[in-house]
Amino acid sequence: MEKIIRFGVSIEPDLLKKFDKIIKKKGYKNRSEAIRDIIRKDLIKEKSEDPNSEAIGTLTMIYDHHTGNLTNRLLDIQHDHTKEILTTTHIHIDHHNCLEVIVLKGKTGNIQKLAENIKALKGIKHGELVITKSSL
Amino acid sequence: MEKIIRFGVSIEPDLLKKFDKIIKKKGYKNRSEAIRDIIRKDLIKEKSEDPNSEAIGTLTMIYDHHTGNLTNRLLDIQHDHTKEILTTTHIHIDHHNCLEVIVLKGKTGNIQKLAENIKALKGIKHGELVITKSSL
Amino acid sequence: MEKIIRFGVSIEPDLLKKFDKIIKKKGYKNRSEAIRDIIRKDLIKEKSEDPNSEAIGTLTMIYDHHTGNLTNRLLDIQHDHTKEILTTTHIHIDHHNCLEVIVLKGKTGNIQKLAENIKALKGIKHGELVITKSSL
Amino acid sequence: MEKIIRFGVSIEPDLLKKFDKIIKKKGYKNRSEAIRDIIRKDLIKEKSEDPNSEAIGTLTMIYDHHTGNLTNRLLDIQHDHTKEILTTTHIHIDHHNCLEVIVLKGKTGNIQKLAENIKALKGIKHGELVITKSSL
Repeated sequence: MEKIIRFGVSIEPDLLKKFDKIIKKKGYKNRSEAIRDIIRKDLIKEKSEDPNSEAIGTLTMIYDHHTGNLTNRLLDIQHDHTKEILTTTHIHIDHHNCLEVIVLKGKTGNIQKLAENIKALKGIKHGELVITKSSL
Repeated sequence: MEKIIRFGVSIEPDLLKKFDKIIKKKGYKNRSEAIRDIIRKDLIKEKSEDPNSEAIGTLTMIYDHHTGNLTNRLLDIQHDHTKEILTTTHIHIDHHNCLEVIVLKGKTGNIQKLAENIKALKGIKHGELVITKSSL
Repeated sequence: MEKIIRFGVSIEPDLLKKFDKIIKKKGYKNRSEAIRDIIRKDLIKEKSEDPNSEAIGTLTMIYDHHTGNLTNRLLDIQHDHTKEILTTTHIHIDHHNCLEVIVLKGKTGNIQKLAENIKALKGIKHGELVITKSSL
Repeated sequence: MEKIIRFGVSIEPDLLKKFDKIIKKKGYKNRSEAIRDIIRKDLIKEKSEDPNSEAIGTLTMIYDHHTGNLTNRLLDIQHDHTKEILTTTHIHIDHHNCLEVIVLKGKTGNIQKLAENIKALKGIKHGELVITKSSL
């Protein structure tokens, strides 16, 4: 099991009170958990700027499956990138719209480029990429 | 099939040239598709500020499944919100880390609150929520 | 003078090492200072979602002062909001372009609305609002 | 005077209706102005990722001028970067707090690094950098 160490933080009582209030609202059990989360978030943001860092991404998109040959083109692109694409989840939202979540793995730059290319396809109404890291 | 209409945009030639260059790089086939995408993105951003608007969300998270009773608590929370949670995708990243993507549906405010509560659980290393709409 | 208190944070050694590396790169002298900064950033983000909270804002914009009667309209709008507008800084960038920074004070919602209205004026090429708080 | 050209956009009537509603709320007089603004915003976001591109920045910050020798260190840093710093606006918010807006010019990467260094100073409670371009 991983060791845990401890360090101290000096802070104004008023600022700490406001912080405690907000983390309680969010549902955190203690300050350490909340501090670790914002540290990790900061590190991921920093690392995501390096196109060569290893990352995991999820691309969330809404599209109309009636649009031209979109479904075929989506399948083609994904089959050309089997190395980067781990899995795809598909939800039928209504008669027209689908939600699809693609899980990607690889270099941040490659994931971003692939996501841009998919979002640019005719019929994709909205797409948004989340970059995360498992190494934190 | 849905009708399509057309409207004209006045623009400086230099600005249009830069726009064409960037959408080509992103992979767009034509300007209309690119313009529609940025219009939709703008609308989603605007609508996401209204906690009562209907939305679809995906929560991407990384966690260590060895952490205390995290997996049980994750299951508990999800079973308490079967109305909002449509599906969950789970990927085994390595010995310690899991990637989980939860697809949520409901009022923007409820989705955000549920995502905050899940992210606050001990062991969730990073979580990020994407809000989208099918009605665009 | 304000009292300072201290609290402890439990953390994995590896995560702390990465955090130390990044705050050193950013120029922080110690962890407490860096932690306080990310806590404040988090609180400001949270508070900015409440349109009734008191805030200070700066609107940065680039515009072409040759555009129609833009300069007059900018002056008109600003004189209609002398209560919210504290000061304006103007820089002549080149023959065409001006940079103007307007400092605003008031309710978050009012500041945002005023900034939207200014950004919508013909000739304003780019505008971006920063919301901050003095009460942290 | 600069020429203006025109191009057509194909769009679903329903999406256009929603777009018209939102730009009216924001205060735009016509669609072209709104479209040009979102195109420019997109280009600036894209360009800001290139650390070598020329940019203008404004750093907004709140600080307590009673903190140690902060005011001296702020002056020192600024005098070491007279090439990048165009001007500074200072507002006395209350007995403790100052708002300062620094206008910067130079390569995006240099501006970002300088802003990080200033934000890391003890006593700076919140700092946020806006990057913009005059060449759009």
